[in-house]
Amino acid sequence: MSLVVVGSMAFDAIETPFGKSDKIIGGAGTYIAFCSTYFTPVKQISVVGGDFPEDELDELSKRNVCLEGVQIKKDEKTFFWSGRYHMDMNSRDTLVTELNVLGDFKPIVPESYQDCEFLMLGNLAPAVQLSVIEQLKNKPKLIALDTMNFWMEVAMDDLKKVLEKIDVLIINDSEARQLSGDYSIVRAAKKIMTMGPKYLVIKKGEHGALLFHENNVFVAPALPLEDVFDPTGAGDTFAGGFIGHLAKTKDISFENMKTAIIVGSAMASFCVEKFGTERLRNLSKDAIAERINEFVQLVHFDVSLV
Amino acid sequence: MSLVVVGSMAFDAIETPFGKSDKIIGGAGTYIAFCSTYFTPVKQISVVGGDFPEDELDELSKRNVCLEGVQIKKDEKTFFWSGRYHMDMNSRDTLVTELNVLGDFKPIVPESYQDCEFLMLGNLAPAVQLSVIEQLKNKPKLIALDTMNFWMEVAMDDLKKVLEKIDVLIINDSEARQLSGDYSIVRAAKKIMTMGPKYLVIKKGEHGALLFHENNVFVAPALPLEDVFDPTGAGDTFAGGFIGHLAKTKDISFENMKTAIIVGSAMASFCVEKFGTERLRNLSKDAIAERINEFVQLVHFDVSLV
Repeated sequence: MSLVVVGSMAFDAIETPFGKSDKIIGGAGTYIAFCSTYFTPVKQISVVGGDFPEDELDELSKRNVCLEGVQIKKDEKTFFWSGRYHMDMNSRDTLVTELNVLGDFKPIVPESYQDCEFLMLGNLAPAVQLSVIEQLKNKPKLIALDTMNFWMEVAMDDLKKVLEKIDVLIINDSEARQLSGDYSIVRAAKKIMTMGPKYLVIKKGEHGALLFHENNVFVAPALPLEDVFDPTGAGDTFAGGFIGHLAKTKDISFENMKTAIIVGSAMASFCVEKFGTERLRNLSKDAIAERINEFVQLVHFDVSLV
Repeated sequence: MSLVVVGSMAFDAIETPFGKSDKIIGGAGTYIAFCSTYFTPVKQISVVGGDFPEDELDELSKRNVCLEGVQIKKDEKTFFWSGRYHMDMNSRDTLVTELNVLGDFKPIVPESYQDCEFLMLGNLAPAVQLSVIEQLKNKPKLIALDTMNFWMEVAMDDLKKVLEKIDVLIINDSEARQLSGDYSIVRAAKKIMTMGPKYLVIKKGEHGALLFHENNVFVAPALPLEDVFDPTGAGDTFAGGFIGHLAKTKDISFENMKTAIIVGSAMASFCVEKFGTERLRNLSKDAIAERINEFVQLVHFDVSLV
């Protein structure tokens, strides 16, 4: 039984008010894989061009990422994205998007991935996400999906179809408002949970995250950071920590999902400390445990003092 | 030993996307008093005109608000504010501000208020806030102060003077950025704590609140609400719950301040459910305890599941 991750593997070029990266390794699938493997092995589904560095693939293999489902198109180029963050680090302009191999990506689920118990569908065209679900012979224990406003604008019908087949939707607050057409986050959540997902995670960046399920709500803080160096991949890393913890513990109770949200938040707080995936490459178990404990301290209060 | 509250008592006329109020009772001092008296008696310092309804003064008296420090200027008019909230309920336009009696308000601290142990300085001109501190013969155990961007623009020198004399500053996130000149909330907090206050509370509306002290941070959630009916006075009510809990327990440890933040957040979550002070007038002890318990549930997660 395994965790299958579907997502882009890419080159990114990032500009922030604090600096500028070279063309570095990025992509939702890459961030999720780097993060999830701290908790459980990953079976990756993605596509790269012949220009994707072999040592990066080796690095992922060494970290327990199975690459059998990663198509390598020798004569084509890897997806490339370039963006510039504004001073507030919350908004950004896309400078370049070259889809390249991602343009006609048809994911193929290898036979060895049919033991998929947890499926994490990173942000991609909803039709691509749906195709993976449809190739699985058995329904996974849990399917989580990340998407973005772009797909709500150009592929809403496809998105609605895939939403009906998933368990957990992970989006940010403005995407929740757009998807539901409701400004109130609580009402938006209720509407979205009628569209398919029984669980909804709403990410709010520096304001933390919310988990909704039936009439239950959980509020997770973000770690207050002096500097956010590069927010790229923070959302994917959050998703990677969330699904990684669930796949490791195989417990999909609401109680354990709350803990998974904290694990995701802790991992995302590391991600933003350096450019790209750098910070996610050398975390110790102790560092992760310590960071999670910071979240315990952050929200703890003594109600007996009331 | 007592809690002294300084703040405006006013008429408000409020428009929201959900409705429009008549000229109703408002003002920072009013909200603080209505809220704090659920926890401890209040000695009020304020000023009203001859048009302020006597039954409202009686109502406050009945609730254990001592009005000896409230000046009644028979031949003048009470402060009047009118505002219209935008669809997001976070921003608003001021339609009318008539200072009236507030224009030349010179607070006088009655002799019977000299036992002041906790002093809550609601949002007012910093010179007025300072004048109250200077009239107290003994330094209170704790002085908390609320202010706003307007005073940073027109009375920064006075504000800096009063900041040197207080213990807790309560402002919102944009005010913290403006006061410090730093976009990062964590760096902003560090800078502001060099300006006088040893404790800093940063209110973030629907995103909750932060408490800073030395290198400690506490993150409090806001209760996710389906509808915010009228946000007027929510910040003042928060301050009222915060200082009310501290004055009741007489414990100014960081641990108890965290609990006070939750009490303030719970009280503010009631305030926004109806127009003006309406919801604050008939809360039961049980309703308050139940609401505080909702906050316990909201942030609880089981770290042993990691």
